[in-house]
Amino acid sequence: MKTVGLIVEYNPLHNGHYYHFQQSKKSSGADAVIAVMSGHFLQRGEPAMVGKWARTEMALRMGVDLVIELPIAYSTQPAEWFAYGAVSALDATGVVDSLCFGSESGDIRSLHTIAAAMHEESTAFHTLLQHELKAGLSYPAAYGRAVASYLPGIDATELAKPNNTLGLHYLIALRRLQSRIEPLTIIRQKAEYNQQDITDAAIASATALRHMLFEKKALAEIASFVPEGTMNVLRHEWEAGRAPMSWEHYAKPLLLQLLHHSPAQLSMFHEVTEGLEYRIKQALPQLSGPTDLVEKLITLLKTKRYTRTKLQRMLLRILLNHSKEQLSPSVLGQGVPYLRILGFSNKGQELLKRMKTTARVPIVTKVSALSNPSPLLELDIQATSIYALGYASASNQDFFRDYYEPPVRIEP
Amino acid sequence: MKTVGLIVEYNPLHNGHYYHFQQSKKSSGADAVIAVMSGHFLQRGEPAMVGKWARTEMALRMGVDLVIELPIAYSTQPAEWFAYGAVSALDATGVVDSLCFGSESGDIRSLHTIAAAMHEESTAFHTLLQHELKAGLSYPAAYGRAVASYLPGIDATELAKPNNTLGLHYLIALRRLQSRIEPLTIIRQKAEYNQQDITDAAIASATALRHMLFEKKALAEIASFVPEGTMNVLRHEWEAGRAPMSWEHYAKPLLLQLLHHSPAQLSMFHEVTEGLEYRIKQALPQLSGPTDLVEKLITLLKTKRYTRTKLQRMLLRILLNHSKEQLSPSVLGQGVPYLRILGFSNKGQELLKRMKTTARVPIVTKVSALSNPSPLLELDIQATSIYALGYASASNQDFFRDYYEPPVRIEP
Repeated sequence: MKTVGLIVEYNPLHNGHYYHFQQSKKSSGADAVIAVMSGHFLQRGEPAMVGKWARTEMALRMGVDLVIELPIAYSTQPAEWFAYGAVSALDATGVVDSLCFGSESGDIRSLHTIAAAMHEESTAFHTLLQHELKAGLSYPAAYGRAVASYLPGIDATELAKPNNTLGLHYLIALRRLQSRIEPLTIIRQKAEYNQQDITDAAIASATALRHMLFEKKALAEIASFVPEGTMNVLRHEWEAGRAPMSWEHYAKPLLLQLLHHSPAQLSMFHEVTEGLEYRIKQALPQLSGPTDLVEKLITLLKTKRYTRTKLQRMLLRILLNHSKEQLSPSVLGQGVPYLRILGFSNKGQELLKRMKTTARVPIVTKVSALSNPSPLLELDIQATSIYALGYASASNQDFFRDYYEPPVRIEP
Repeated sequence: MKTVGLIVEYNPLHNGHYYHFQQSKKSSGADAVIAVMSGHFLQRGEPAMVGKWARTEMALRMGVDLVIELPIAYSTQPAEWFAYGAVSALDATGVVDSLCFGSESGDIRSLHTIAAAMHEESTAFHTLLQHELKAGLSYPAAYGRAVASYLPGIDATELAKPNNTLGLHYLIALRRLQSRIEPLTIIRQKAEYNQQDITDAAIASATALRHMLFEKKALAEIASFVPEGTMNVLRHEWEAGRAPMSWEHYAKPLLLQLLHHSPAQLSMFHEVTEGLEYRIKQALPQLSGPTDLVEKLITLLKTKRYTRTKLQRMLLRILLNHSKEQLSPSVLGQGVPYLRILGFSNKGQELLKRMKTTARVPIVTKVSALSNPSPLLELDIQATSIYALGYASASNQDFFRDYYEPPVRIEP
């Protein structure tokens, strides 16, 4: 059984994802699809609009065979660690033949060239990067500029596009892990990553869809842009009061954390760097709440150097109480220490059987059966509790759903 | 100007308080009244139904001349520390001649006798107390029994009544502080401290009134039991969305704290004693929320030994992030380190002038003017922020109101 791996958020799963899914199977010639999917909190430092089990159901209904959770340690990270965590998960299964990702360029060869030069970051490159950072650029911009001066001829603007950046880091991660997985890329269709307007009758970006949902609050608005499976799941989650979640649902818990910690204590949290602890404390007396509290805080903290994404990731680590120590490079550098299975099809079940002999880390299908869960898995379990704090009302099963919820089983 | 001191919560101020106020002036022959009042969180480990400035206004409208805040370090404590903090505040003014408190017994002489024997707690008494505690009694019950066996002839049941207990500790505190303040007691009329039924047309306990308000949610219900000044303030706070506050408004922030701290970290909080950190962690997976989450938690934790009051105080210290170290006996034993003025009448202003020369600790009328506030005052300022987290919506002035709000100025 030939297997292709995808790295996804599906927030929510839409027609563009379906196109990518079909193209990935086609270009890889795979019979089975494994998706590594972020849990409740996403790469840009935001809560997912709907929880991880709902998004797993969307993926299975579309035809994905096995959904593995990307641990929160990696899911809310800059491109390097996000890519490294996700690729390490695909690699650790021992059954993935290819990784297929979307990119703005669609050009795997030029990405290969850069990855080959970058995978052992030289002292020279680091000096260039530090130089750009000291000039006050944000990290992504500084990284693009440093690559461009390190490798003349590179189009820095082109490389800085989000999916090209991610793609590059997938390739670097594959090299670092000495993985046998073959990378493939598909040029992204129609909708740019962050685009807010709807430019096509059938394909819109997830950002544009979330925008429609939060602005118009009418689920039916997005029906023509998502598969039927997505619509059904969204409807169900809406009715259950578990969606749509946004940062503002966590304003009070976040404020509690900010009030309770001194600047020195704040600086212990992951991503709280370069004196941001003082900027946070100075911003507090200007906040009101809970409406728009998080938005106001980000506006107060934002500078050219600190992008919204960087600040959201930082606030998320504060909300979740994740320390620098828990997420140190030596911890993250080991790759995912477990494969948490969120759902599978019948074909996925066959993959799981094979993985019993091929997987290089433990496979977790039942959290409650573990006597001594990995510290990173503890963070995932706790993230579910905090995510449920945002619900208008939550049952004990919502708070500790990782212990109750079996993997989702759905045939498309 | 002869001055009588009162120690109050006014949650809310009712006709029974008015009766006590009048009797206190009469029996002390005082021209002026100073009240030491708890801030936003009260002795039984609960948020006040309305905030400290609103309750200050009730007090001033009734005729109190000066309202001093009892720091949260003392306001949410067992009788010993509560009494010690409040008496130390009255004593530190240097202008209070007498302290008048209500008691079930109305018998100052027998309380004096016990206080004289108790104010230097002997090894023998401590042994008796430990013996009763080990038998599984709650602290108040064990204390009453130990006093009864230490001082034969004492009626333990009578002494254990809440206002007798508090009164005894006021007398003990006066002795420890070698205060020149004369204690007086007035027998409590009509309503028992905790009584939930209404037995008289004009006097009901604060507990009974809160019960009516939370059950029937109609403010008019209590009109005949409270002075007009109280009704006006309550109406205003209700309309502003700042009342009535209860523990359930803090369910989510509390749960965040409980999720974020390991048993070892929980045990660092004040009042988390004797392995309660493990009982809390075991109870978590049985909770749902936010409706009745705190009530459910208390039910799960409650035993014969741990009274509701003890548990509420503990949960409040966890919510507020107050450590054992911050509230150690050596810190509390120094008495209040400042006199925070919440409000005053014209006569109160004269008292404040006199206090400029008589007060033994700094007088704080403007928090924002302090360059280096006392650590205990920082706790009061933070308590205001956490209290405002419970509001449906809060302005930045609500969160940091201690910096904005001048003392309340109202003539009755």
